Amino acid sequence: MSRFWSPFVKDLVPYVPGEQPKLTKLVKLNTNENPYGPSPKALAAMQAELNDNLRLYPDPNSDLLKQAVARFYSIDAAKVFLGNGSDEVLAHIFHGLFQHDLPLLFPDISYSFYPVYCGLYGIQFDAVPLDPQFQIRVADYAKPNGGIIFPNPNAPTGCVLALEAVEQMLKASPDSVLVVDEAYIDFGGESAISLVDRYPNLLVTQTLSKSRSLAGLRVGLAVGHPDLIEALERVKNSFNSYPLDRLAIAGAAAAFDDRAYFEQTCKRVIESRENVTAQLQDKGFEVLPSAANFIFVRHPRHDAAGLAAKLREQGVIVRHFKQERIAQFLRISIGTPEQNQALIDGLGQL
Amino acid sequence: MSRFWSPFVKDLVPYVPGEQPKLTKLVKLNTNENPYGPSPKALAAMQAELNDNLRLYPDPNSDLLKQAVARFYSIDAAKVFLGNGSDEVLAHIFHGLFQHDLPLLFPDISYSFYPVYCGLYGIQFDAVPLDPQFQIRVADYAKPNGGIIFPNPNAPTGCVLALEAVEQMLKASPDSVLVVDEAYIDFGGESAISLVDRYPNLLVTQTLSKSRSLAGLRVGLAVGHPDLIEALERVKNSFNSYPLDRLAIAGAAAAFDDRAYFEQTCKRVIESRENVTAQLQDKGFEVLPSAANFIFVRHPRHDAAGLAAKLREQGVIVRHFKQERIAQFLRISIGTPEQNQALIDGLGQL
Repeated sequence: MSRFWSPFVKDLVPYVPGEQPKLTKLVKLNTNENPYGPSPKALAAMQAELNDNLRLYPDPNSDLLKQAVARFYSIDAAKVFLGNGSDEVLAHIFHGLFQHDLPLLFPDISYSFYPVYCGLYGIQFDAVPLDPQFQIRVADYAKPNGGIIFPNPNAPTGCVLALEAVEQMLKASPDSVLVVDEAYIDFGGESAISLVDRYPNLLVTQTLSKSRSLAGLRVGLAVGHPDLIEALERVKNSFNSYPLDRLAIAGAAAAFDDRAYFEQTCKRVIESRENVTAQLQDKGFEVLPSAANFIFVRHPRHDAAGLAAKLREQGVIVRHFKQERIAQFLRISIGTPEQNQALIDGLGQL
Repeated sequence: MSRFWSPFVKDLVPYVPGEQPKLTKLVKLNTNENPYGPSPKALAAMQAELNDNLRLYPDPNSDLLKQAVARFYSIDAAKVFLGNGSDEVLAHIFHGLFQHDLPLLFPDISYSFYPVYCGLYGIQFDAVPLDPQFQIRVADYAKPNGGIIFPNPNAPTGCVLALEAVEQMLKASPDSVLVVDEAYIDFGGESAISLVDRYPNLLVTQTLSKSRSLAGLRVGLAVGHPDLIEALERVKNSFNSYPLDRLAIAGAAAAFDDRAYFEQTCKRVIESRENVTAQLQDKGFEVLPSAANFIFVRHPRHDAAGLAAKLREQGVIVRHFKQERIAQFLRISIGTPEQNQALIDGLGQL
């Protein structure tokens, strides 16, 4: 602690992202990246922007990308907010929409960045326990709150909440903002974007880092009522006028326009997930039902940290959270068939 | 105002960036971009990253770029902080280092984003008047404060403060952080980075948007004592783990490594600035002494808003600030010799 710091910095506990190893030989199943590259059309669009025009500022509103998102979902572009990855979008949401007297609600087992944002912006929160099967229990959120946020499918469990359940939550808390964080929705869930027109308190966030294979480009978005979008635009325009660079705007827009490639890669990931799930069940693992591009598993007779260390020795990295209730689980991203085989081989006889 | 907003959002007055026209035929002298493209080596480095690896997250610490900056300035990489444009770097500085009981000090005529950040983070400030010649008067900052920030050269005046004067300010306020915002330093000033080892309260920010011709890529940095950098890293890691994308890290690092190209383009801009200055003086303009890639000018007989409108009709955009004390000035970015000629021609007989 330095005397120069703003006082709150002393108590900040930053988020710790999954390891990004500089060794390229490792089979990297630890940060839920897509095993397939981005759309060739996205790469071509970035190629076309890679020139002397990079000397110029980007469009501060990223209209090209807002329109591509709006086209994809058949919505009005005025309902779209963009940011430098969905983490930035979430940060602005916490700042601009969640600073209220009542506590924010989110699941106890959830994206571990949520409590970090609360620390950054001084927001009170109440972590609502998942049920013993690690599912979100909708009734638990029907209490006074200053906002609700949860990933759907949830992370790191992979479990999805049906759209009817989301709607039930919206109805139970009409006076606070409900954010559905859909980072993994394209691998098996149904997007709540279809509900945005009917619920002015609904905000849906998504990322291009998972289903659109662009984690390296940093683009995320939110969709909601223009009143909610206005709050986010005000915060964004008081923070950084140009969060998206020229290459990111072009690449992300082309990725949204290439629906065929997107659907094909999602389908491949889903097929692999079902294969890996069956193989791990054969080895005695319990696998939570996943609608994401990862699975959350535990073995009744083998310690999770030990299994992670064993896999690491075999050159396969998975993610282990040292957290109450889930310390015996591993979160394993779905890779290519070859990478998934390396995982199965790395586990060996159990 | 929506009932869903965090209360502070209602009073936010966001920053308004210079226009980014979608018409490409305009001579754009309004946002201080570099008239020359980025280093060919920067373009080549981005080209090499434009591939399927974009499916992977970037290095959250952007070590490649920190090392390139450290090499360029012969400093330790632990003294370097990076962000998505210097605006993001500044936002984290205001949040992490300027929330104190005493007011922050900055010049009354200065980067108009500073008061916006104060609104975003609830920081009290005291705008210190420039002297009648639009210069920073060092003695005016020798009073109790919660931090000091000013651009050097100042924007939109272009006037530079000598390094000895910066040092005097550091000595007068040893208990608060002094930030020198060096967005334009490479066009004629002397960087305060050379003072960082001796002043633990000094932080220097820079951008790649001006002298390195990469406004479209969004990269900024801060250099200071590791204690100050730690505060910024804590805030950054509680906001967005990966502010720089893979292309930006590679391109920015290569731009820093290409010292020859950088020096050559800066030299051309400086030469053009001196030419344009002489030509405008011939037309009767008062031109403040500039060490930046823009000039700040007024004409004793012609209204600034009128001149800007006239230029616009000729296809030349410059920036006019409707602000007390400077409402009769125009800020004009230095373009290529052809663009500068279009400016002179556009003004016609005065």
